Amino acid sequence: MAASTTALETTALELTDRLAAAKRASTALATATSQQKNAGLEAIAAALLANSEVILAGNARDLENADRNGMAAGLRDRLRLDPTRLAALADAVLDVAALLDPVGSTVRGSILPNGLQITQVRVPFGVVGAIYEARPNVTVDIAALALKSGNAAVLRGGTAAENSNKALVGVIQDALASAGLPADAVQTIDEFGRDGAKQLMQARGYVDVLIPRGSAHLIAAVVAESTVPVIETGAGVVHIYADESADVDLAVEVVHNSKVQRPSVCNALETLLVHRDAAARLLPPVLDRLRRSGVTVHGDEATLALYPDAVPATEDDWGTEYGSLDVAVAVVDDIDAAMAHIARHSTHHTESILTGDLRSADRFLAEVDSAVVMVNASTRFTDGGEFGFGAEVGISTQKLHARGPMGLSELTSSKWTVIGTGQVRG
Amino acid sequence: MAASTTALETTALELTDRLAAAKRASTALATATSQQKNAGLEAIAAALLANSEVILAGNARDLENADRNGMAAGLRDRLRLDPTRLAALADAVLDVAALLDPVGSTVRGSILPNGLQITQVRVPFGVVGAIYEARPNVTVDIAALALKSGNAAVLRGGTAAENSNKALVGVIQDALASAGLPADAVQTIDEFGRDGAKQLMQARGYVDVLIPRGSAHLIAAVVAESTVPVIETGAGVVHIYADESADVDLAVEVVHNSKVQRPSVCNALETLLVHRDAAARLLPPVLDRLRRSGVTVHGDEATLALYPDAVPATEDDWGTEYGSLDVAVAVVDDIDAAMAHIARHSTHHTESILTGDLRSADRFLAEVDSAVVMVNASTRFTDGGEFGFGAEVGISTQKLHARGPMGLSELTSSKWTVIGTGQVRG
Repeated sequence: MAASTTALETTALELTDRLAAAKRASTALATATSQQKNAGLEAIAAALLANSEVILAGNARDLENADRNGMAAGLRDRLRLDPTRLAALADAVLDVAALLDPVGSTVRGSILPNGLQITQVRVPFGVVGAIYEARPNVTVDIAALALKSGNAAVLRGGTAAENSNKALVGVIQDALASAGLPADAVQTIDEFGRDGAKQLMQARGYVDVLIPRGSAHLIAAVVAESTVPVIETGAGVVHIYADESADVDLAVEVVHNSKVQRPSVCNALETLLVHRDAAARLLPPVLDRLRRSGVTVHGDEATLALYPDAVPATEDDWGTEYGSLDVAVAVVDDIDAAMAHIARHSTHHTESILTGDLRSADRFLAEVDSAVVMVNASTRFTDGGEFGFGAEVGISTQKLHARGPMGLSELTSSKWTVIGTGQVRG
Repeated sequence: MAASTTALETTALELTDRLAAAKRASTALATATSQQKNAGLEAIAAALLANSEVILAGNARDLENADRNGMAAGLRDRLRLDPTRLAALADAVLDVAALLDPVGSTVRGSILPNGLQITQVRVPFGVVGAIYEARPNVTVDIAALALKSGNAAVLRGGTAAENSNKALVGVIQDALASAGLPADAVQTIDEFGRDGAKQLMQARGYVDVLIPRGSAHLIAAVVAESTVPVIETGAGVVHIYADESADVDLAVEVVHNSKVQRPSVCNALETLLVHRDAAARLLPPVLDRLRRSGVTVHGDEATLALYPDAVPATEDDWGTEYGSLDVAVAVVDDIDAAMAHIARHSTHHTESILTGDLRSADRFLAEVDSAVVMVNASTRFTDGGEFGFGAEVGISTQKLHARGPMGLSELTSSKWTVIGTGQVRG
């Protein structure tokens, strides 16, 4: 009731205005046709190329700040845009335009005994929030996926990428308007800093779902602070268990592919477990193949005995997502010991059993509690693209709403329509 | 690092033990067959009858405490058990046993171009938490639904029902053990008080989903404090909009049924909106029929002019869930005004349009953002039983995971199984 509002209150009001604008825009988007949304996506792709100068100028300012603040090289590389990367972003937007629109598809339906027609149909969430760090490509990525699925997007991409994101969102908003769609459908709130992120996490009534993308630390913070529902995408401490009956050639190839093909991603192998009775047969060729690709083996005692090049594993190794050319290896007594190890150390992302035994395969599939459970396949297949979803929003390691690779359908909710002729309840 | 633990630390440890026991039990339940789970439910139903004395004795202690603390009559009635109510509870458990088991059913699947068979199957969440207030029937209800869907349940049913819940859970645990299922699959944590509830809301890694049941205040508190994912069931400020073309006899019957058949529940009508050009034709017969059932009409000015028995509506009426024989009535200019009113005041539960016009029906179905949107039907049909789900876990008014009436399927997550023959990613 003070006569003048404080700076903080002004900020809160301005941010609320922006959230309210996104919510209004989401109403128009919810009933937009696929053709209209695709026209918007095509306009965005063209505008990213046509406005590359202003985008790269914004990005240059962020890179200067990064250098001034001594940003780590890996982070700085993710922050950096150039004409090639912008062209790839524009192509990715066109790829999203080519996907099937999930909105309006029927989940299930029936005619009740009293003649009421009930139908569950996919509808957009409304407003999707995203919180991520210093990755301007995610700004374009989430905006495109949200738009295709009929959602408005409110993006908090971090202060370190503020100028890049501001330029990108400005270009996207102009493109939306040129295609006859509401410009307010994509919003950036980086300028509001940490207070803005906090307000986004508490914006019930404005934001329908919040997707954190980034480090485990970021995701944990969003989960802890949000009252808006969160879809978590998580880390992968991914296991392969080679059963007594595993084929040696299959094991060599699948383990190598799972670990080496792209070690930095969440579906890469981190821990190999081998049945005691198969260790002498399997471990030397499997680990030898890994060594030739530069993999460091962190082995338990039994592994060290069979493979002297290994370094001794510590307790920490079993829970580590290396993201590098390292693998932890343990010899286990049987499938029960393997599944107990997995239950204790897994992040419930992906686990694969290598076996020729039907009973072992069935037990592993039924009893391992992970988003994706495999038999005789590389863990690298846990991927929206590989699963045929076209795009990937992320890989959910939680159990609510979506689990495993998330495609466009996972960016929708549903509603029930009920069509009657005057039915009343008796 | 103190030499002795405090009482609070001891409590926290004991509660964690109980959560861990539930988690272990959930592993066994996840692979239990429908026959085994049904045998457990039948044992529970029989045990509720066989042990009615100990249950009613526990309930009597709660009722004594309630009287000492001056509990309101309505609450006390919900707290009270008697032989008839216990028999109804046992019957409800048998009804759950008769439902189709959702676990193991296939959501979708395909064979990828490389020959990998991918299948998304329904699996239990694992551990379902529930927070509710002084309703021992919910203890049995949630335990049965959780068990049928392969989940363990951790129940916080409130200090006021602590003795009832303790007796009920004791009987349920013994029955589970007698049927060869883990007794730890159903746990009560009432004895840990508010600290226990708080710990349950923060029990990530132990509890997979939390369902609050009860007042809007309770649900809001759980949403605000939980880091465990929450499925909200919400209040219903339910609207009917009678369009210009609505049939008068249909309007009289549907409005009456929606308001009067059971006014205390969340799918009962609270606000009636009528098109200006139909108000003189519709409102007198519709409101006259309501009056004869004892309904008080809270009308806007245009309604008062047509129906002098109405009391003047205040701004608060438009957002009120009466839960009683009261209805708010407003005359609106057109369908846009009706939908704008609904967007402002609805709790996104159920809204119904009464119309003979196809375009109006289509617009209402597409543009109204509620869990259930109806044409020419009583709002009382928003119900898991009416929808053919058999049981109802609640009605979700949020958009993540489940929206609208929730059946057993909504108490499951999914996982992907991938079956290969040594495929690696190129």
